[in-house]
Amino acid sequence: MSSLNNQGSFHLAEGIERIDRAMADGRLIRYYDTQGQDRSAVDQREQEDQPAIGELRLDPLLNEWVAMAAHRQGRIFLPPKELCPLCPSSEGLLSEIPENDFEVVVFDNRFPSLRAPKSDWQMPEDINFDTPIIDAAGKCEVVCYTAEHAISFKDLSLARIRLLLEVWRERTYEISQLPFIEQVFIFENRGEEIGVTLFHPHGQIYAYSYLTPRSEKMLQVAKKHYDRTSRILMADIIAREIHDEIRIVAQNSEWIAYVPWASRYPFEIHVAPLRLVADLAELDSSQCDAFPSIAKEVMQRLDGVFGIEMAYIAAWHQAPIHEGRDLLRLHWQITSVRRQPGKLKYLAGSESAMGAFIMDMKPEQSAQQLREVKLDLAGMK
Amino acid sequence: MSSLNNQGSFHLAEGIERIDRAMADGRLIRYYDTQGQDRSAVDQREQEDQPAIGELRLDPLLNEWVAMAAHRQGRIFLPPKELCPLCPSSEGLLSEIPENDFEVVVFDNRFPSLRAPKSDWQMPEDINFDTPIIDAAGKCEVVCYTAEHAISFKDLSLARIRLLLEVWRERTYEISQLPFIEQVFIFENRGEEIGVTLFHPHGQIYAYSYLTPRSEKMLQVAKKHYDRTSRILMADIIAREIHDEIRIVAQNSEWIAYVPWASRYPFEIHVAPLRLVADLAELDSSQCDAFPSIAKEVMQRLDGVFGIEMAYIAAWHQAPIHEGRDLLRLHWQITSVRRQPGKLKYLAGSESAMGAFIMDMKPEQSAQQLREVKLDLAGMK
Repeated sequence: MSSLNNQGSFHLAEGIERIDRAMADGRLIRYYDTQGQDRSAVDQREQEDQPAIGELRLDPLLNEWVAMAAHRQGRIFLPPKELCPLCPSSEGLLSEIPENDFEVVVFDNRFPSLRAPKSDWQMPEDINFDTPIIDAAGKCEVVCYTAEHAISFKDLSLARIRLLLEVWRERTYEISQLPFIEQVFIFENRGEEIGVTLFHPHGQIYAYSYLTPRSEKMLQVAKKHYDRTSRILMADIIAREIHDEIRIVAQNSEWIAYVPWASRYPFEIHVAPLRLVADLAELDSSQCDAFPSIAKEVMQRLDGVFGIEMAYIAAWHQAPIHEGRDLLRLHWQITSVRRQPGKLKYLAGSESAMGAFIMDMKPEQSAQQLREVKLDLAGMK
Repeated sequence: MSSLNNQGSFHLAEGIERIDRAMADGRLIRYYDTQGQDRSAVDQREQEDQPAIGELRLDPLLNEWVAMAAHRQGRIFLPPKELCPLCPSSEGLLSEIPENDFEVVVFDNRFPSLRAPKSDWQMPEDINFDTPIIDAAGKCEVVCYTAEHAISFKDLSLARIRLLLEVWRERTYEISQLPFIEQVFIFENRGEEIGVTLFHPHGQIYAYSYLTPRSEKMLQVAKKHYDRTSRILMADIIAREIHDEIRIVAQNSEWIAYVPWASRYPFEIHVAPLRLVADLAELDSSQCDAFPSIAKEVMQRLDGVFGIEMAYIAAWHQAPIHEGRDLLRLHWQITSVRRQPGKLKYLAGSESAMGAFIMDMKPEQSAQQLREVKLDLAGMK
């Protein structure tokens, strides 16, 4: 299998400039700008020690890594706006971002679950019951979407979503070059209901030094499908959604958004490019330019169903870096546990202990609810 | 591999009698008694139609079944005590239990996610992308632990826990005989934080017509371990816990309770018999008699950590019925998402979308907190 990300190089789209600055504790902050801004502000906070690297322990019952980051208990929990560490710095607030304004910034996570290991770090070859504890190698970054504290992804301008997509693409490419990284996961958690600790619109990047359990399973299944049919699983999935039509939520020349055939959550939407690619970095300019409108539409529909801000997890599934790049295909999975205005779906016994999902609602029903939402067309700029 | 549960028969321990009665809508209620009570009360509620069987759809990305039970949205949500459907019936309350008192009862779930299929139902041989929707075959039962509304498992008498264990064992054995069942899952969800809809102390049984994803993975891993070492994985796990000692929470002549080496939740306890068995039905009388005290102790320790009722899922992992009975071993997994008195651990992006668990606390730390709880010895009767 080819390892596409290790070839060539990545250039940000025209008009986007990246400026890097060191933070007080040595972490890096990256400003992505479109107006040629000066980014010389200095992080004036006191220096603090960086936390030590955590542990990876193998859960022997499932042969899966569990990352243990004992230092994260102290992290900031739902601060008021005037103490928000993701707002620009200002008179009286020294935040994570030294500048007093920004477009999109990405900085190293202050409480990383995974971080760069010593240079001699190696993943053991065979992972089994006798595998000892190893350092929790990886990389955790925070992506701030905007300097505005009180808005959401769905309120971003189309131009800002296009910039954000470019940032996600570049981070994917750059992090993929690190020798200890196997998989780059870009996601957003939104909503107190799912434990979000900071309201400011932002996402995260977790880059793992191992194949995550879900990706490993998806790769096995895609390989089995290919061996049986000589076809790419994701292509067959999208063909069925187009054929059935009833679960499609939005569509344009390059992208399709649908509630999947066997959704696991009251509201679950998958967004995929019609021309399949392995990861964000592989998208071409036509695909990139067509993404912002469907992304914004999908998020507006989700919040429109009950007229409230929906808790969600928006997760980019990308092919891993060193295997399965010809079998796994990029898609954006958005899931919400909100099943009615006052009710959540909880992952209790069956889902949590057995992995057996039980749905109260058919996907065709939630797709219809999503389609019936009236869009704020004036907001689609 | 042998299929032990299809041999012989099961006899309830001496002194326990089971009486079956039909409910108004045709469901069955089973009274398990130790005092020779008369159980002739008739369900006086109006008859209502039983809901239709749901669907199993295959999630093609993971090749896993998702059960869809569209009729469950109407179920009762946190009723006040005077409307509790799990209390005994009384003047003014016609509940699920027609009698005005009971010890342990088990009845068919009124809103079953899985139910008995038509007699010609068959699980397709090869499960893949092209597998059509099938009826959601299985069985869902509710187990009421006591007639007392406001207590918890940890408040049950040792004699009642012994009776409950016998009921679990008999249900496992009896349901295992059904031709469409592959796996019997006995569990309790406790706490509003994880979506419990009824406060009355009770558990549930989900009997699946398929191997659940977690059991399938555990079986693969146990098989790989056996092929590599000629040893049973669970035996090696328990040997390590005994050797390390530091994560043990409670122990007696037949059972051990420990925080597992790579726990995934702030508080996670596994309880296993020292002499390994495939499922509850296989426990001998010595093991059964030694269970109530350690079960009660573990639940008291859990609630004692913060002095509040902890939300938890208590899940019995049993070997499936028709495969892996020589490799998978019985254990009781108790997990709590409560990490501090005012804080929960949420399964957000990394856990939910990638299956990659991140822990804020080491298992040795939570084991110590659990051990330090002062037990209510007067309550250990």
